[in-house]
Amino acid sequence: MPEKIRGVIPRKIKGFRDITPAMNRRRWQVINAAARVYKAYGFEHWDTPVMEYAECIGKYVPDEESMNPSEREGIYTFVNPEQEPVFYNDWTIAKDGEKTIMDRFPLVLRYDLTAPLARVYAESLWTEKLKGAVKTEKSPLFRRYQYGPLYRFEAKLDPGRYREFWQLDFDSVGTADITADAEIPMILADAMEAIGMKRGAYVIKANNRKIVQGFLHGLDIRDEAAAQNILRIIDKLDKIGLDGVRGELGKGREDEFSKAFIPGLNLTAGTVGRIIEFFKSYTSAGLRSETLASLRANAGGNELLQAGIDELAAIDAILVGSGFDETRVRFDPTLIRGMSYYTGPVFEVASLQTYTDAKGNERNIGSIGGGGRYDGLVERLLGIKVPATGASIGIDRLCELLELLEQNDAPADGPVFICMFDSALMREYQTIAAELRSAGIPAEVYYGMQKGLNKQLAYADKKGCSIAILLGSDEAAKGIVSMKNLKLGREIAADVTDKAEWTKRVQSEVRREDVVEAVRRIL
Amino acid sequence: MPEKIRGVIPRKIKGFRDITPAMNRRRWQVINAAARVYKAYGFEHWDTPVMEYAECIGKYVPDEESMNPSEREGIYTFVNPEQEPVFYNDWTIAKDGEKTIMDRFPLVLRYDLTAPLARVYAESLWTEKLKGAVKTEKSPLFRRYQYGPLYRFEAKLDPGRYREFWQLDFDSVGTADITADAEIPMILADAMEAIGMKRGAYVIKANNRKIVQGFLHGLDIRDEAAAQNILRIIDKLDKIGLDGVRGELGKGREDEFSKAFIPGLNLTAGTVGRIIEFFKSYTSAGLRSETLASLRANAGGNELLQAGIDELAAIDAILVGSGFDETRVRFDPTLIRGMSYYTGPVFEVASLQTYTDAKGNERNIGSIGGGGRYDGLVERLLGIKVPATGASIGIDRLCELLELLEQNDAPADGPVFICMFDSALMREYQTIAAELRSAGIPAEVYYGMQKGLNKQLAYADKKGCSIAILLGSDEAAKGIVSMKNLKLGREIAADVTDKAEWTKRVQSEVRREDVVEAVRRIL
Repeated sequence: MPEKIRGVIPRKIKGFRDITPAMNRRRWQVINAAARVYKAYGFEHWDTPVMEYAECIGKYVPDEESMNPSEREGIYTFVNPEQEPVFYNDWTIAKDGEKTIMDRFPLVLRYDLTAPLARVYAESLWTEKLKGAVKTEKSPLFRRYQYGPLYRFEAKLDPGRYREFWQLDFDSVGTADITADAEIPMILADAMEAIGMKRGAYVIKANNRKIVQGFLHGLDIRDEAAAQNILRIIDKLDKIGLDGVRGELGKGREDEFSKAFIPGLNLTAGTVGRIIEFFKSYTSAGLRSETLASLRANAGGNELLQAGIDELAAIDAILVGSGFDETRVRFDPTLIRGMSYYTGPVFEVASLQTYTDAKGNERNIGSIGGGGRYDGLVERLLGIKVPATGASIGIDRLCELLELLEQNDAPADGPVFICMFDSALMREYQTIAAELRSAGIPAEVYYGMQKGLNKQLAYADKKGCSIAILLGSDEAAKGIVSMKNLKLGREIAADVTDKAEWTKRVQSEVRREDVVEAVRRIL
Repeated sequence: MPEKIRGVIPRKIKGFRDITPAMNRRRWQVINAAARVYKAYGFEHWDTPVMEYAECIGKYVPDEESMNPSEREGIYTFVNPEQEPVFYNDWTIAKDGEKTIMDRFPLVLRYDLTAPLARVYAESLWTEKLKGAVKTEKSPLFRRYQYGPLYRFEAKLDPGRYREFWQLDFDSVGTADITADAEIPMILADAMEAIGMKRGAYVIKANNRKIVQGFLHGLDIRDEAAAQNILRIIDKLDKIGLDGVRGELGKGREDEFSKAFIPGLNLTAGTVGRIIEFFKSYTSAGLRSETLASLRANAGGNELLQAGIDELAAIDAILVGSGFDETRVRFDPTLIRGMSYYTGPVFEVASLQTYTDAKGNERNIGSIGGGGRYDGLVERLLGIKVPATGASIGIDRLCELLELLEQNDAPADGPVFICMFDSALMREYQTIAAELRSAGIPAEVYYGMQKGLNKQLAYADKKGCSIAILLGSDEAAKGIVSMKNLKLGREIAADVTDKAEWTKRVQSEVRREDVVEAVRRIL
């Protein structure tokens, strides 16, 4: 660098955030409430490392990236500082003569919690395999929930998207039972209400991949890649609209904003018309039984479509039996979910509440979670199929929604604040704090260097303290303390403009020996 | 690779672990209990990203690595996938003519929670600086606690050490008040007891860096680097013994195991003798007042030593006033703590309980946390001194200790387990589960593919389920269910060898409508 020295600017990586106490209160309220529901259904709390070998979790890249030529785009992949022995797939160590072949296996920050789950499960089976005892037919059941931060390197970040974000997943690995699928929307709905969402403020949408795939088979689109390309375009319906979808399925279209030409799949006008018609004819409105009847009427002899309908009907029966009606779970035959690895039922948690954005537009935050059945997850690691099904809640998105709705705002709960007036009284301040803590009430003595009373009270207000205790030498001599109800002060600050009146309502004197009792009364 | 294809072995990175439900129960019990104490003293819960710019948190490398020529050893540093503009230290963008100079700023996984704290604090002050309002004298007070995973790339891993591990920190930034230091051992002691450690099973050791530094000044060792080298060797006392320390301070020594020669600092025999004598003459035993008296008697006119003693005396007075006696906090003038950035009081949480290791030796797990005052932390980022003090608990070490002591073992709390006998009864199984959940009792219907009753019960036992409900078509016809007390079954398994007797004590029949009540009775 010439002349000037390069500066170290204290900053976070783009797309990474600090989490404030208010954000943490909301985050942990969401996690604890939802985890309690997961647990009530028998899922256990596991955790896995934030970093893994890329080759162990590298295949199932989520979202659209998985369709890109480079599998790793969208992911933080790093060079391993360590060299390790190379194994062949018969588990023998690779040798070059006498010398073990070493390599740096690339590392990756986990981009979801499902790929590490597959690694955990496969690792356990692999240990069995070494013992020569892997069952390929009847894999053991494993039901776990897990939450924590995930990492995606998205070069362009949409508003509200982060490169470090939290999810809360539950999955059942080793079950093909449709009841395990049917439980997913029940769990998601129960979790939403445990978190504080009102009934009617959310809905769980359900569909089956086989329905869409069966329909495409009916149009003679049987190639998996071609079907995936079509699904990917249909999944953009919300973003690009019906005309956009029509263009991308057909001869291509010009992008509204960039004016760039986006090439199309060149399907015939007839095929495009029938696809559009199918997706227009269904929504998530209406009764599940009606949706099923309508699908059945159009199924013809399409076996895959029929299989999808039968599974959806089985899920409906279980939902009805468990009392989950359309106010909580609806069927939407157009629901796809982005990830290509789903093989059967798919689910989505949708917020139905709108909010007004900064520009005054009514907006909907949309999907805040989802999941489905994925029977191929472990296959790549061990070459055996293990049926699995599960779902995930996006914690940050949900917290953002709760904040937008000003709902579920865990109240600030700062400590009782003991002002520092006179360092000679420090021991007395400490004693008061200790008395409060013994009574189970958090308390803080001010140690800051900005000693002015206003600075001290501003600090306490920022922390959400409810009460400030003021004790100077005058009060000490009289055996009293002054007490300020900061919470009340904040509440009436807008209405009470007269300073004396405000102070009168907010401030009081109590005898020194009554401090704990007086605090308890105010709290 | 020739011939054989390279295999993907499902595995974790060396030094990384999966956390089982039992480990998670212990981990979160520790975190929640200690965090409640931190909160009771007025600390707020913040979080920071797992990954940061190396230049923003790269300086304070913990442990011995900080003395190595390469500052980054021991740390996971990675190439940034993103190019970003370069700034000079006057905050102007670096240009090459019209073109902005771009660079890939290296990324690092956080190796402690203190360096990110400094970044948070400096970032907030820096924003002020842009507004032209940084106070260099009276920085604002900021008190936060934080927990989460940390990452250190240690090429050689000692037993019980991990590359991904958790810590739980609390810090006060922006206070020079000795009372903030004195609170640290109080908080640590309260946290240990909240976690479940008995009084006498732990002790908080306290010292002041100025005492050791002052003593070295008295020997005319005033060079900071030379002093740090001496302290680093003395800190290894537990590992290499008194003779090892003597050797490394003097002419060097031969390593017991590797037989390699470790060069010494070549201090004179007289100096080495006086250093050894100083560190031999103090331990953490005895009364704090006695330790202070003995230090005072030897202080002579040594100003730095005297300042350290005065601070320790002030801490003692506050501890006495708050009722923290030597059963909880002791003074140990030989305590150093590894990190070179401490500038005053230092603290360590020591376990006093021994356990018997696999080889039958009595062992002590040693330090499970510590901290101290570090007034230079923010200086590097903004060029201003901000006084700060805080401490940290090693969560994994503490959990390991609790496990070794078989203490605080949060009981397994698996769901009520509903066996799958007859798929025609699935709806009834679901209904029972729903009834239990409505009563606040977790319940799981078995969905696994391994259908045998023994396999099902083994699954339930592994999950720590207390009760299994067995309902076949016979029971259904009679309007009853069978109930197995799995918990009791596990407890009496060793004593009751007669199968019929065991079954009689463990199994019972209840009327279908009494299931919830019967479950509640057993739980």
